[in-house]
Amino acid sequence: MLRSQTASAPPGDPARQRREPRQSAAGASPAAPALAGAAHPTIRLKPGGERRLLQGHPWAYSNEVQMTPEAKAVPPGSPVVLETANGMPLGVALFNPHPLVSARLLARDPATGIDADFIAARLSAALALRERLVDEPYYRLVHAEADGLPGLVIDRFADLAVVQANTAGMERLTPAVLEALDRVLAPKSVLLRNDSAARLLEGLDQGVTVAKGKAPGRIAVVEHGTTFRAEPETGQKTGWFFDQRENRALVAGFARGRSVLDAFAHAGGFGLQAARAGARFVSMIDRSAAALALAEAAAQELGVAERCAFHKSDVFAALEHLARQGERFDIVVADPPAYVKSKKDLQQGLKGYRKLARLAAGLVAPGGLLFIASCSHAVDAPSFQHQVARGLADAAAESGRGARILAATGAAPDHPVHPLLPESAYLKGLLLALD
Amino acid sequence: MLRSQTASAPPGDPARQRREPRQSAAGASPAAPALAGAAHPTIRLKPGGERRLLQGHPWAYSNEVQMTPEAKAVPPGSPVVLETANGMPLGVALFNPHPLVSARLLARDPATGIDADFIAARLSAALALRERLVDEPYYRLVHAEADGLPGLVIDRFADLAVVQANTAGMERLTPAVLEALDRVLAPKSVLLRNDSAARLLEGLDQGVTVAKGKAPGRIAVVEHGTTFRAEPETGQKTGWFFDQRENRALVAGFARGRSVLDAFAHAGGFGLQAARAGARFVSMIDRSAAALALAEAAAQELGVAERCAFHKSDVFAALEHLARQGERFDIVVADPPAYVKSKKDLQQGLKGYRKLARLAAGLVAPGGLLFIASCSHAVDAPSFQHQVARGLADAAAESGRGARILAATGAAPDHPVHPLLPESAYLKGLLLALD
Repeated sequence: MLRSQTASAPPGDPARQRREPRQSAAGASPAAPALAGAAHPTIRLKPGGERRLLQGHPWAYSNEVQMTPEAKAVPPGSPVVLETANGMPLGVALFNPHPLVSARLLARDPATGIDADFIAARLSAALALRERLVDEPYYRLVHAEADGLPGLVIDRFADLAVVQANTAGMERLTPAVLEALDRVLAPKSVLLRNDSAARLLEGLDQGVTVAKGKAPGRIAVVEHGTTFRAEPETGQKTGWFFDQRENRALVAGFARGRSVLDAFAHAGGFGLQAARAGARFVSMIDRSAAALALAEAAAQELGVAERCAFHKSDVFAALEHLARQGERFDIVVADPPAYVKSKKDLQQGLKGYRKLARLAAGLVAPGGLLFIASCSHAVDAPSFQHQVARGLADAAAESGRGARILAATGAAPDHPVHPLLPESAYLKGLLLALD
Repeated sequence: MLRSQTASAPPGDPARQRREPRQSAAGASPAAPALAGAAHPTIRLKPGGERRLLQGHPWAYSNEVQMTPEAKAVPPGSPVVLETANGMPLGVALFNPHPLVSARLLARDPATGIDADFIAARLSAALALRERLVDEPYYRLVHAEADGLPGLVIDRFADLAVVQANTAGMERLTPAVLEALDRVLAPKSVLLRNDSAARLLEGLDQGVTVAKGKAPGRIAVVEHGTTFRAEPETGQKTGWFFDQRENRALVAGFARGRSVLDAFAHAGGFGLQAARAGARFVSMIDRSAAALALAEAAAQELGVAERCAFHKSDVFAALEHLARQGERFDIVVADPPAYVKSKKDLQQGLKGYRKLARLAAGLVAPGGLLFIASCSHAVDAPSFQHQVARGLADAAAESGRGARILAATGAAPDHPVHPLLPESAYLKGLLLALD
């Protein structure tokens, strides 16, 4: 089932694709000359494997693909023409025979050439959207499937672009991505943060390399006028979590004159935004000294350091210690890293959220607020909310205090979600008011 | 199983309740004299019926209650002491033997007196929260269970309070609610909008009455500085949908210089907020001439009428007509009334959302935005999102245009949600960006 098709096939004419199924790039007929760089091998689905794709879903799973010896021999990450069992082309996909998600659709037109031009068009659309969504040039520029570029993440920090290729397909396309990025954005520096866990599933190695310009070192990140500090080469993920931008603003909107506890503070996103909004006092806890050093440096620069405290500690231990001391805060933020890494950790992880909700609620002063979040992909919003509700009920069993959800939030809009991949909406946040 | 307990039982002492299970209000012993107005009959649950309540959930269903002749004889809406099958009190609930939800917990302390003092305390807490959440005195002041007052809704329009008693319990307590409202808020006027469908399930009649002051007539509603018009006696629900306040602000944030279609415009909440934010042109469609008259009056007062158009029409028919004419809008808002009234309408209703998403998406200009919402209680967020995704895919099958979710929103925070009643988060909104 491994064949090739060429970019000269008329767009939107599946009938033609069916009539000439054996045409290969090497042996293109004079009537349909191969265009440079646009010949894709063909991967055929099993009968019925096309149903979801025809409804607009962008993936085919490995058990839906006819995994012939030829299919298995396709170099991981190659663009392919994906077609139904009876030869109707579905579009161009990036194909890797090894992981669970084997094909990720790039374009519905099977004749689409996948090159720097193609990627530049997608980047331009992604950039135009971000410029409408975010005031400062600090945002997630590309968020994979939702921007039509499956497997690709690009975070923009003004003149620096931090690129993550999370699939074999995007690994192969990285030269075209870099060329397109130069054309569309022309960043001074490009860092490849190719050390995500997702790459391991795709059979890719791990590494951090400077693809253009110089190593960024410690950089500025601006959100709603507040300048933070980040280190994109060594920080978690791309060095900054833009996904919480609007949630930080939401919490900061309540912070004037209040005391704030920022648990899992990382580089101070929630805590410093609250301090800058006039919080009376902000206590930031994280187990990473490097992250807290960034928070402290930014606090100094923002002129809020005298209202901030920084504690290097295991957060659960610190919360229990604060509770024993009878400490209370008007606002408590608990934004832990993704400690449910996969479905097998799910039960244990859910218990963790319940415990975190209980401990954090116990530190909220009367009439205060709790913001609690989960960025675990494996935990869906209803499950997270249920565990938080149980943790709050555990706390209420001791204190008798009721709680109510004021807002259920997600990632900032520069992290769009493909409508048919609702499970990719990994960030769940709950803002609660306690009695 | 029908017995009484008195307010003199020591708070937080369930053991005492267990020791004296047969004590009645009429025959209170001298050691435990009945306090005025605080004697509640007792309703006993079936074995195991307490499990969810012990976890903090506020309801008991009719099939969990020992529906003895005495229980059935309790006047609908009476405060009762709810207890486990083996006599452990769970708290004070409002009881109605007839509907599916038979008992709604008011307080965990079984000795709590349910009177104007009790309600005033809950109202004060609800008011304090709203004053932190909303800048202008126009909001949902009480949102039932989440404010510890199951069955009660109060919308505040400055000096006017519009009250809905949606359960027999709140119907009985209405005099105490009005007294408490006078103490806490002292509104000049109080309107009872007791014409909700929910009341029918509770065996209550329907009616709209002025409980204090004068009939409101046409009033002002202020949201984020924009003054709208509403008619609380005759408009849908309480005359205004505060739940969309923040969603209107979200959409308006993108409206400057853009053309906007507000389908199901009602009194112009989305459309006028967009016009005031600088929209180039706003077209509002609704099938209610009365609602559109409010929108038009407000548009005049706001000085934006020359950029607004008002069309009385069935909205689906209007959307199809606009599509045939090739009309396109930079922003399309589709916020239909709850057309899935109950589970039996679900399948038909889901199809309606799919069709609405398809029609609305077809009217979005290239690179434009779609905001689509559902306020149907019977439709949960994942189901709504799935139908919208399918409708967008239907539209894409014709146009080839992709779409992405920028934000999944809910009701404004003055409509809080009890953590263990996630299904009460009835309002679902999706902001989408189209190719």
